[in-house]
This record gives sequence, structure tokens and C-alpha cells, in this order.
Amino acid sequence: MSSHESFYLPRHIRKVLVANRGEIAVRIIRAAQELGMVAVAVYSDADRDSLAVQMADESIHIGPSHATKSYLNTSAILDAARQCGAQAIHPGYGFLSENASFAQAVTDAGLIFVGPDAETIRTMGDKAAARTSAQRAGVPTVPGSEGELTSIDNAIDQARRIGYPLLIKAVAGGGGRGIRLAENDNDLRAQFSVAQAEAQAAFGDGRLYLERLIRQARHIEVQILGDGKEVIHLYERECSLQRRRQKIFEEAPSPALTPALREALCASAVVLAKSVGYRGAGTLEYLYDESRCGAGEDGEFFFIEMNTRIQVEHPITEAVTGVDLVREMLRIADGEPLRLEQKDITLRGAAIECRLNAEDPDRQFMPSPGKVSALRWPAGPGIRIDSMLYPGYTVSPYYDSLLAKLVVWDESRAAALARMRRALREIHLEGVKSTVPLHLALLEDPNICGGRYNTNYLETWMEARKESQS
Amino acid sequence: MSSHESFYLPRHIRKVLVANRGEIAVRIIRAAQELGMVAVAVYSDADRDSLAVQMADESIHIGPSHATKSYLNTSAILDAARQCGAQAIHPGYGFLSENASFAQAVTDAGLIFVGPDAETIRTMGDKAAARTSAQRAGVPTVPGSEGELTSIDNAIDQARRIGYPLLIKAVAGGGGRGIRLAENDNDLRAQFSVAQAEAQAAFGDGRLYLERLIRQARHIEVQILGDGKEVIHLYERECSLQRRRQKIFEEAPSPALTPALREALCASAVVLAKSVGYRGAGTLEYLYDESRCGAGEDGEFFFIEMNTRIQVEHPITEAVTGVDLVREMLRIADGEPLRLEQKDITLRGAAIECRLNAEDPDRQFMPSPGKVSALRWPAGPGIRIDSMLYPGYTVSPYYDSLLAKLVVWDESRAAALARMRRALREIHLEGVKSTVPLHLALLEDPNICGGRYNTNYLETWMEARKESQS
Repeated sequence: MSSHESFYLPRHIRKVLVANRGEIAVRIIRAAQELGMVAVAVYSDADRDSLAVQMADESIHIGPSHATKSYLNTSAILDAARQCGAQAIHPGYGFLSENASFAQAVTDAGLIFVGPDAETIRTMGDKAAARTSAQRAGVPTVPGSEGELTSIDNAIDQARRIGYPLLIKAVAGGGGRGIRLAENDNDLRAQFSVAQAEAQAAFGDGRLYLERLIRQARHIEVQILGDGKEVIHLYERECSLQRRRQKIFEEAPSPALTPALREALCASAVVLAKSVGYRGAGTLEYLYDESRCGAGEDGEFFFIEMNTRIQVEHPITEAVTGVDLVREMLRIADGEPLRLEQKDITLRGAAIECRLNAEDPDRQFMPSPGKVSALRWPAGPGIRIDSMLYPGYTVSPYYDSLLAKLVVWDESRAAALARMRRALREIHLEGVKSTVPLHLALLEDPNICGGRYNTNYLETWMEARKESQS
Repeated sequence: MSSHESFYLPRHIRKVLVANRGEIAVRIIRAAQELGMVAVAVYSDADRDSLAVQMADESIHIGPSHATKSYLNTSAILDAARQCGAQAIHPGYGFLSENASFAQAVTDAGLIFVGPDAETIRTMGDKAAARTSAQRAGVPTVPGSEGELTSIDNAIDQARRIGYPLLIKAVAGGGGRGIRLAENDNDLRAQFSVAQAEAQAAFGDGRLYLERLIRQARHIEVQILGDGKEVIHLYERECSLQRRRQKIFEEAPSPALTPALREALCASAVVLAKSVGYRGAGTLEYLYDESRCGAGEDGEFFFIEMNTRIQVEHPITEAVTGVDLVREMLRIADGEPLRLEQKDITLRGAAIECRLNAEDPDRQFMPSPGKVSALRWPAGPGIRIDSMLYPGYTVSPYYDSLLAKLVVWDESRAAALARMRRALREIHLEGVKSTVPLHLALLEDPNICGGRYNTNYLETWMEARKESQS
């Protein structure tokens, strides 16, 4: 390439290996190629004909279709990187992206891991350690008891400090087992001993702790970028519409925040990320408690955990800020200091992402693999499609069912909703069932259109819909 | 539709007929549907299977493939509007879009013409009348002589006032005939009588006038929106890369303007459009003379003509301002006052449009009609495709050869150039030859990448390329 061909001259990363598949592999290949880096795809048996392989400058087979033998196989990926002479590995999301041992192995092999260092992944990937980091940084976490609950009276003292309703949880518990709800002192008194005995029986450890129940929680996350020294935020994403903890519809900005609360939330994310010397793109997830909102009062937000990688829903942030997050990740990994200051980051308009999955909404969202026999994506102003589909592509049963992310931007939230409806109706996809009809139905719902929803909303909505249809 | 389904409630236009074809018909249908209007396509024999027909809510056949019998047939179009009960007609660009008689006929039929009134189209569509309007509004036009040139001495006086080099033109001339170049007084003296005699012989009218020659002209145009009272500008587009007066590559903002000159240019467009009470979207075209630029001095700009309709290249303005121009046209036509004030219009980043035509760059850009056998457009961040193509679509020889407009946005001009290269390389189009290779070659040119080009540049470049290849 001649020098005028590139607006960026890589310092170290002349070749980057993309240790992922599907739409995020395509996304990373595009960003790398725009930066003048050589992009290398890796692929399993099932992905031999993938769009990522077609678009990459080089591609290397790393194993059988089962992810454990390919996309989760550290040594196969490191071998591929050595074989092609890549200087860096971008892990995408999922698979090995938040695996501290993988990040360490990449570094130990003398390569650049596009993300934070293994130590940061380890700390922020551990919920308890991340919570401690947040508390040290002065960032609110979900209120809970401190130390051991020594007696019923002690529990009641702590409960009054935390505030009802709250959950009684076993210290040794997990997977949602042994959790009891207390709405007031009486509930707590009535349940304390029972819960203690139950925990002792179930986990061999009767210790309990208390945590405030957030009933009207919204899931709001803050995007940050750091270079190990400076950290900036790129505002928030509202991700409350979830089904079985899977986000399916995200928007930016959140319709729930006042400007003052938005600033406070985003500032807290910067403080926390800076306190751990964060490097790369990261997301801090919060619960936003609207239950005490009203009469000019804001709700409260609580940090819950951090994702130390690029998120599926990153394009909505790109749409409202104009910043290419994957490009920034690659530049930071290449040794560049953060180019942007906080004052450079401004919001314009509103963006929505609908995740289109190969699932059959009429059959309990069963996966619907198969061959794409016809495909036409929507286009025109404000539309972005991130997808690995092409006509003739076979959707594999081996991996998650994400077919495409349909992202729309418009000058306002109301306009973006109208544009999303238009775009969904334009989709012409044959051969696999998809969640397009589900999204069209969601966009008919007055609460969703009004921005009035929380993390319970979608499942309740779907139950109601099932009943009305049966 | 339920009320929450639309962010806009049409006042008068519940149904709009799109009196055009190809990508602009698709573009208008999208805008209308987003506004909650019913979109009606019209089609000729050749366009029976068009994407516009597939996407429109209704469609009406208006005649044979020849445009004179369909898209230029006023009565067929008015019949169609009556038949479907549309309240308005959007003319797009080309065809009847700048035909004052058509606009008048639409109004006479009791329908809304989406554009300015017939009177404005007539005035601003006439070069001489538009020039007079500009002069009245105090907007600079290409300097020329005033009144009749009464003698050689009078001509020399005027020439010194205008400034050399200048062109000696016959008042009665046209089509480029009888134009002579004068670099100085001596040239003018030597050529005056000869030109006079020649004009007398050729046109039966020996009168001459003088006009400054702008050698290093850039073609820069300003986008405006007006509601008949207020007018705002949406900054400029640089459209100097032309082949046989056809633009093929446009960008916004222009790489040639200083911020101060940009403000002056755009302000002049607002003054002029306001002086004629402009309503709708319009474009004021200017020549920008760089020949006297340098040493901290700006060049000069001169108004040349106005297009009283949406332009092919409007998406680059949409990309940098975030304003949907076709939507605004429809809202204004629907009787809304201008929603935006000048302070609402800000520039973000840079956008480039490459026009992809069905032409064979290896065979003197011969049209290349045919059937699209395979098609995959580029996607991902910052990419917009406006096109009427789909796999299996047959490109007709009856109409212009535009296949698609590939528009990229990025945070800077340099990044947009890199993104455009990436996007062009991603295109997978089989069955018709296209100008994709031409655009890829243009993006290798250091002058184009550096923003150093004018209206002569592309043809000179293509000549040089032809010679180097032969």
C-alpha cells in the first residue's frame, strides 16, 4: 500500500488475528482493514465458508466445529497467530474474550492482547472483587449487609440501614438457590432462622447476608475507553429488554435518565475504570432503581459488574457518539494514547439495536438453523447492519443464534422507533426463521415506545402475549 | 396504524405519489413510510419488477418504458395521483422535477407539489433570471461586463474592472460557440473586431460581452431548506470531480474552504434563497475560484445557478448534519414551518459519495445494462447504500446508468477515504460492469486524497491514465 492509502500508520500491529467468528469477526476485520492492518480470520470446520473468511486478508483453520476444539482452544489460536506472523489477537466478545488465562498466554507468547491485561480481567471479572473495587472508588453498589449477621437483632439493624425490600441470601449459596424475600422487619424475623437452617443443610454453611431487592431495575451500562492512564466515557446504553438474561433490544441514550443523573452515572464509571488503570474498551453495568423515583427525585444507580471487552451492542454507542470503538481498541492496543478527551464526546440523536436471531418466535424461540435462500437487508439513511449472512450461507447449530444486528440512528428516539419499524419491514430473509416478527410486535407496545420498561418487562410481556394468543 | 406507531401525524399528506424511479424513488418511499404516509410508486413497462414497486404500499403503471411516455408524461402521472387518491406528488430529481409547467399542473389539479412553487422554479431555473436575483440579493456572480460594449476602449475599461483572464462571448451565442479568450489588453484589442464580425456572421447579432474566466474552478454547492419565510443552510458539498459535467464523487465538507469562507458562502445562499421566498429543499451552485488563493488569502466564490429539487448527492449532507432532507421536504410540503433553526445545524465528521454506474471503465464507459446475478453490498459502521438493485434485477438501457450511491461517513476526511476504500473492496456485484474500479483508482490518487482538485481534474486524470495504459 502506498502511504497516502492509509490514514493510520500502525506502530506495532501490522497484522492482527481475529480470534472469533460471526458478525463480530466481520466487524473487527473491517476496522483492522480501515486502519491498514492485515486481518487474519480463524475458522472451525463449520465456518469454512464464512463471510469473515471471505473478507479477511488471510484465514487459518483452527479445528472442528465444536467451539471447545476451535474458538475456545488457546493453543490452536496461538499456533495460528505464530503461523501467520500476527503481532496481535483481538478476542471479540464471548469465547476467550474475558478469559484471563488466555490473555496471559497471548502476552506470554510475545503477542499483543487487544484488551486489558490479564490482571484487570481477573479482578473485574470476579463479581466480589469488582464490587470491592467499586466501593474503594466510591461507586455505589447494591446495598447489602456488612460482615457476618450475628443475630436476628443484628440482621434487623442492618436491614433498616439498607432499606426494605431485601433479599436474604446464603453466603455459600449460588445459582439463585436459598434466596428469600423480606418486605419488612416481621418478614425478616419470621424467615431468618429458617433460612439459616436451610443454608446449613444445603451448603454446609449457615451464614447469611442481606441485599436490597431492586424491583423496578433497569439495566444501564456505561461504555468507557482507557489507555492505562486516562479514561473517558461514551455515555450509556439502556439494555433492560432481556429474555432469559439475553439482551434483545438496546438503545442509546437511556430514556430513563435525567441529564444530571447521566453525568453522575458516567462520571462514576470513569472513576472506577481509572482506579484500576483500565486499558481498552470496557463496559460498566449498573442497575438503575426507579422504584423511589418521582416528584422531581431521581432514582439510584448501583454498579454490578464490568465487561472487559467489546459488547454486542456497541454499535448504538458508535451511532450516537460518532466514535468507532473497535478502531479505538486497535489503536490503544497498538500503543497509542487515548486520542479523545471527554469534551470531544458528544451525543447526537438516538440509536436502537434489534438483535435478529435465528429463532422461531412461534415455537418457543427454538433455534432455527438452516440455509439462507434469499436475503435483502434494509438500507437508506440511518441504517446499519452488522451481520455474517449472505445468500446461500448456512446458519450452523454449533454457535449462538445471532444472525444480524440491525442498528438505526435518527435525530430523536421517536424518529428512531419509526425508522426501526420501516427497516424491519424491509427485511427479506428466507430459509431461516428469525425474531423479526417479535421485534415488530415489541415496537407496537406503548410502554416500549414510551421508554417505560425494566428488566422484568419483556418476560411479562411475552407471557401476556402467549396467553392472549392461546 | 395506532397513534404510538408514528412520530409524525400528517396534516394533509396521508398519501404521496412518487413520480420517479430507481434509487430516488426508493429513497422517497422510505422517508414517506417513516413519516406514516402511504407511499405510491408509479412505474413504466421496464420498471414492473422494480424495488420501488416492491417497497411501495401501492403502485400504478403509467406507460411504456420510454420516459417521454411515462416518467415525463404529466397527464399519466396526474391520472395516477387521482386514481390512488394521493394528496401530494414528490418529483425526485431529473424527469419533471424542475419543470415549472408540471409543478403548476400538479397545483392546478388540487394536489401538493413537493417542492417550490412553479414561479420559483421558473425564476431560479432560468440562468439569467437567477443571476439577476443573485445580484439583487448582493450575492456575487461571475464578474462580467455591464450593458453593451460600445467600443474597443469601452471593452478595455470594462475588462480592467472585471479582471483578466476573461472570455469574449456573443450576446446571441450559445452552446460554447464564438467564445474567445483574452489574457490581457493586447489580446482583447486583437480579438474584439474579429469576434464582433464572427458573431454578426454566425448569429446575425454582433453584440459582445465579457465574462471572467475561472481557470481553477471548484464546483461547490450549498444545501438549503426553506418554508417560504425562513431559510437555513446545511453547509456545502464539494462536487468538482466531474466527467462530461456528470458528478461522480462528492464530499462534504469541501476540503477547499476556510471556516470563514464557509460561513460567508453559506450565508450568501441563505440570503439569496430568502430573497425569493424559497420553499422546500434547494441547492445553490457556486464556482469557487482558487487561482488567486494563497498567502493567507481566500479565493472568491460566484453563484452560478440553483437546483430547485433534491440532489443526487444529498446523502453526504445528511451524513454530516444528521438531518433527513427528504423527510424535511415532505414535512414542509405538508404545511409545517421549518422545525430547525440555523443554530441546530452542526457539522460532524466527513462524508463521501461514490456514484456507482453501470458502465464499463475499460470500454470508454459504455453503458453496461444486464441482469444482476450476484450482489452483496458493503456494511458495518459509517456505510450507507442507496440503490434499487437486488439479485436478479435487470438494469434497463432506458434510463440513466446509476446503480447505487455508496456513501461513507467517518470522523475525518482521511478516515472517510480509508473507509470508502474498504467499502468499495467489499462490493460483490456480478452481471453488470460498474465504475467500482474507477473509484478505487481515484482513491489512489494523491491529489484527490489531498483534496487538491478542480472541475478540470477528472478529465485530465482520465486522459493521463488512458495514455499510461495504452
